[in-house]
Amino acid sequence: MGALRLPALTSIFTSSSSVRSSPAIFPLKHRLRLPLRRPFSAQSTTEKVVAPELGDGKGKVVDKDKDRVITPRSQDFNAWYLDVIANAELADYGPVRGTMVIRPYGYAIWEAIQEYMNVKFKETGHSNMYFPQFIPYSFIEKEASHVEGFSPELALVTVGGGKELEEKLVVRPTSETIVNHMFTQWIHSYRDLPLMINQWANVTRWEMRTKPFIRTLEFLWQEGHTAHATAEEAEEEAMQMIDVYTKFAYEQAAIPVIAGRKSRVETFAGASTTYTIEAMMGDRKALQAGTSHNLGQNFSRAFGTQFTDENGQRQHVWQTSWAISTRFVGGIIMTHGDDAGLLLPPRLAPVQVVIVPIWKKDNEKAGVLTASSSVKETLQAAGIKVKIDDSDQRTPGWKFNYYEMKGVPLRIEIGPRDVSSGTLVISRRDIPGKQGKVFGISMEPSTLVAYVKDKLNEVQSSLLERATTFRDSNIVDVSSYDELKEAIAQGKWARGPWSAGDEEESKVKEETGATIRCFPFEQPEGPKKCLMTGNSADEVAIFAKSY
Amino acid sequence: MGALRLPALTSIFTSSSSVRSSPAIFPLKHRLRLPLRRPFSAQSTTEKVVAPELGDGKGKVVDKDKDRVITPRSQDFNAWYLDVIANAELADYGPVRGTMVIRPYGYAIWEAIQEYMNVKFKETGHSNMYFPQFIPYSFIEKEASHVEGFSPELALVTVGGGKELEEKLVVRPTSETIVNHMFTQWIHSYRDLPLMINQWANVTRWEMRTKPFIRTLEFLWQEGHTAHATAEEAEEEAMQMIDVYTKFAYEQAAIPVIAGRKSRVETFAGASTTYTIEAMMGDRKALQAGTSHNLGQNFSRAFGTQFTDENGQRQHVWQTSWAISTRFVGGIIMTHGDDAGLLLPPRLAPVQVVIVPIWKKDNEKAGVLTASSSVKETLQAAGIKVKIDDSDQRTPGWKFNYYEMKGVPLRIEIGPRDVSSGTLVISRRDIPGKQGKVFGISMEPSTLVAYVKDKLNEVQSSLLERATTFRDSNIVDVSSYDELKEAIAQGKWARGPWSAGDEEESKVKEETGATIRCFPFEQPEGPKKCLMTGNSADEVAIFAKSY
Repeated sequence: MGALRLPALTSIFTSSSSVRSSPAIFPLKHRLRLPLRRPFSAQSTTEKVVAPELGDGKGKVVDKDKDRVITPRSQDFNAWYLDVIANAELADYGPVRGTMVIRPYGYAIWEAIQEYMNVKFKETGHSNMYFPQFIPYSFIEKEASHVEGFSPELALVTVGGGKELEEKLVVRPTSETIVNHMFTQWIHSYRDLPLMINQWANVTRWEMRTKPFIRTLEFLWQEGHTAHATAEEAEEEAMQMIDVYTKFAYEQAAIPVIAGRKSRVETFAGASTTYTIEAMMGDRKALQAGTSHNLGQNFSRAFGTQFTDENGQRQHVWQTSWAISTRFVGGIIMTHGDDAGLLLPPRLAPVQVVIVPIWKKDNEKAGVLTASSSVKETLQAAGIKVKIDDSDQRTPGWKFNYYEMKGVPLRIEIGPRDVSSGTLVISRRDIPGKQGKVFGISMEPSTLVAYVKDKLNEVQSSLLERATTFRDSNIVDVSSYDELKEAIAQGKWARGPWSAGDEEESKVKEETGATIRCFPFEQPEGPKKCLMTGNSADEVAIFAKSY
Repeated sequence: MGALRLPALTSIFTSSSSVRSSPAIFPLKHRLRLPLRRPFSAQSTTEKVVAPELGDGKGKVVDKDKDRVITPRSQDFNAWYLDVIANAELADYGPVRGTMVIRPYGYAIWEAIQEYMNVKFKETGHSNMYFPQFIPYSFIEKEASHVEGFSPELALVTVGGGKELEEKLVVRPTSETIVNHMFTQWIHSYRDLPLMINQWANVTRWEMRTKPFIRTLEFLWQEGHTAHATAEEAEEEAMQMIDVYTKFAYEQAAIPVIAGRKSRVETFAGASTTYTIEAMMGDRKALQAGTSHNLGQNFSRAFGTQFTDENGQRQHVWQTSWAISTRFVGGIIMTHGDDAGLLLPPRLAPVQVVIVPIWKKDNEKAGVLTASSSVKETLQAAGIKVKIDDSDQRTPGWKFNYYEMKGVPLRIEIGPRDVSSGTLVISRRDIPGKQGKVFGISMEPSTLVAYVKDKLNEVQSSLLERATTFRDSNIVDVSSYDELKEAIAQGKWARGPWSAGDEEESKVKEETGATIRCFPFEQPEGPKKCLMTGNSADEVAIFAKSY
C-alpha cells in the first residue's frame, strides 16, 4: 500500500523528455530492470527487458537515433500498450501504487473529449455543477447493493486537521449517494423535475490490478445524475445518454462500439438496468467504454428523495446516472494504435497536422521556414490543429518516426523544391510508406485547406472502417456452449441466444474467462434457443474476455 | 468532524428550487432555526432569524410572492453574502462540515473564469495536465517550511481497499511536492527547460472557520507549476503570472485589485517570494484573490530536481507556482453585489441578457413570444449569452426582481406595444429604477446587437469604475502607528512606509487585527520613514483586515 518508487534511483533511469521539447530518450521499459515494484501490473513484460541501444532482434521499432523502442503490437499487446503510453508521453506512473500522472499530450485528448461532451450534455438539457468529494461513510451504507459493490474499493479519510474524525469519510468512488442527499433538498414538487446535472471530477477506487488509463486508483470522469417524475422519463434519459456516448464513439473516436444492456450480474451496484457501450480492442478483448444506468427508485427510496406530484401525492423520483472516463483514452490507444505507435482519430487529435520543414544547405533554410510558417498560419486560421517542428537538433527522418509514433494523422513536408514550385507533400499516418504519400499539393490557401480537411475526414472514416471490419471479423455467432468455448479460446467474441440464469453465467466466466458484455440493442429476428439450456430465448448476448 | 445535517429534518425546510425552473422558495435562512450545527460559520446571523413570510421590518427585500428575503448589505454584510449565495442558487452546503456544493449558476461563473484563463495560460506557453491527488505523507515532510505551513490542515487517507495503509496518504492541499517528484523524472538537461504546466483540480485544506467560496474544506482551483534554468527566468515567470491574474481581475471581473509582494510573514509556505492580488470587498475587508510564488530552489533542493547545464554542471532548477480558485467567485459577489442581490460583470455572467416577455390578454401572447424568440436568436447569434423567461407561473414584476437578484447585467422587456412599434425596453442592473431604463430601442438586428454590446461594455466599465472609487476612498495614507490604528478602526485600509521587522508586524496584527496585505508594485516616489520605527523605509505597505 502506498509503496513508492524512490526518486533517487528512478530519476537516473526514467524518461528525460519535457513537456515542450524533445521526445522520450529513455523509455519506460528501462525501469523494469530496477529491483523495484512495478506500480502497474504488466505481467507479461517483466522478463523480456532489453537494452534498447542493442535492440532485441525481434523486430522492435528502434529509431535510428536509437532512443526509442516500442514492442511490436502483435508480439506482446500489453508491453506495446505500455511502451506507446511512455514513448508518446501520454502518462506516467504516480508515486502511489496504481496512480497515474496524465501528461500534456494525453490530457489534451481528454480535453477534446470534454469539449465535445460538454456541448452534447448542454444540448440535451444538463447543467454542470460540483459536489464535494468527501462522503460520510453512512451514506454509502444506505443503498444495500451499492455498499456491497463499492465497499471493497473505498479510500477512507480518517484524520482531518490533525484529529481522528468521528465519522470516517469516503473519497468518492461515484456520487449517487451525495447527489441524492442534495436532491432531497432541491426537489419538492413535480415542478422541480426533471433535475438534470453533470459534473467533471476525479474519483477514487482502490483497485488491486491497475493499468494506465484503463484502471487506475484515481481517474477523471464525468458523471451525469438526473431525477424524473416517471419511470418512463428516466428510461428515456438513460437511453438518450447511452446514445450520446455511442455517437461520440463512432463519430469522434472512430470506435465501432456495440451498445446494449448489461446482464443482471454485470449491472452497476444500485442500478435497475445498466446500458453499456462495448469496444473491441486490438487484442480483441472487450472494453466497457461508457455506461448509462437507469437507477429506478433504488437511491430515492434509500435517501427519501421525494416530490409532490400533480395530485398532491408524495412520490419517489426516478433516476439515472451515466459516465465516461479517462479510460476512453486507453480505448482509443488500443483500438487504433499499431506497431509504429499511437494513431489518433483526427477529431480528437491534439495535433492534426505536423509540418516538417526540410533543408540541407543553410541558404535553403529561410525559404523553407517562411513557407512552412505561412502554411501553418493558413491551416490554423481554418481551425486545423497544426504544429511545426523546425528544430535543427533532429533529422527529418527522426521527426517522421516521432510524429508517427505520436499518432499525428497527417504530416506535411516542405523542402526547397516545394518552395520553388509552391507545393508540398502530405503523408497519411494510417497508410504507411509511399502509398499514403501525395506529392505536389498546392500551397494556395483555399486549395490546401480544402485538401487537408478532406484528408482528415478520410483518415477519420478509414479508422472507423478498419476497426469495424476488425470487429466484425472477430465476432462469432454461436448456438451451443461448445461453440462459445471455441470462439473464446480463439480470442474472439461469441454472440449467441441466451436465457439462462445467473449461475450459468458465472459458470461461463469460470470456465472460459468470458463474461456477458451486453445484450446488444441490435438483435437478429426470428426464434432463438438459449445456447446453454436449449430453452427459448428472446435475445442474443455477446460474450468476451474483457479489461 | 464530519457532522451531518439530517436529511429527514432539513429537507422540510430547505430550498425547493431546481436547476431548470423556479427560484428558491425557502431561503437558506430557514435552516438557522433548526437546532443543528451550522456547517459554515455565520456568527452574526445566527440570532436574528425571521420567518420571511412575515418580513422583519428592517428593510429586507421581500418579494411580493413572499418567497425570498435578502438581508440588506449595509445591515449585516455576512448575512447578506450568505443570503445572496442561497437565493441566487450559487452554492449550498455539503453534508460534511465546511464543504460546499457548487450549483449550476455558481459553477457557470467558474467555467467563465476557466475559459478565459485557459486561453491565457496556453498563450503564455503552459500545458494542462493532471497529477494524482494522493501524496505520500513523506513528501510533505521534505520541505521544512512547507510541512510547517500545511500539516495542521491535512486530510489523511489511512485505509484503502479495506486495509490500513503502510504509509498514510495526504489528500493534496497543493501539489508542489508531487510535481517535484515527477519533475525529477522529466528534467535532465537544460534542453528540458523551461517546463511549464498547469492543472485544474480540487484541493483539500482542513479549515476550521469556513465560508462558502471564500474558505472551504475542499475547493477548486488551477495550479501552475514551472521549472527554469535561472533565477531570473523564474522571477520573470512569477511576475508574468501575477500580471495575468491582475489583468483578469480588472478586465473580466471588474475588480480593481492591488498587486504586490507579500511580507516575509505572509509568504507561502515554501516560497522565496509570494506575489498577490488583493481585492477590497464591499465591507472593506481585503481578499487575497490570487497568488504567484517564486519558489527559488526550495523544492528543487528538497526533491533533488536537477538539470545538467550547458557546461555539463548539475544545477537545481528554479521554480514557480501560482493559483486562483473558486474563492474568486466569492470575491465577485462581495465586490459588486448590492441590496438587491448579486451583480455580475457582463464578461463573466452566465446570463448576460434576460428577456422578459409581457402580455396581459391571451391574444397578445403569441405576438410577444414570437418577437421575444426572434430577439433571443438575434442576440445569441451575435455571441451574447441570453435567456428568455416566458413561464406564465410568475408575474413580470416577480421576474424583474428575480433576475436582478441573480445579477443579470441587462434585462429586455417586450410587450404588445413594443411588438407593434418594433422596439423594446432595456434596463441596466447596475442603475436601479427608471434611470437605468431605456425605451424604444429598435429590434432591427444590427442596431439591437450593437446597442446591447455597447450597454454590456458600459455596465462592465461602470462596475470597475465604481469599485475603484470605493477602493480609493477607503485607503488612507498613514505615517504613524496611531494613524494606522485609526484607519483600521474605521474599517479602512492603511497605506504607509514600512521597514520594521516580523515582530512589529505581528504586533500590528495582534493589536488591530490587520495584516500586511502587500507591498504594492506601485510605490510613491521620494524618501520614506517607517510608520512604526521612524527608520528610513524603501516601500509603503498596505495593512487591512482580511478574509
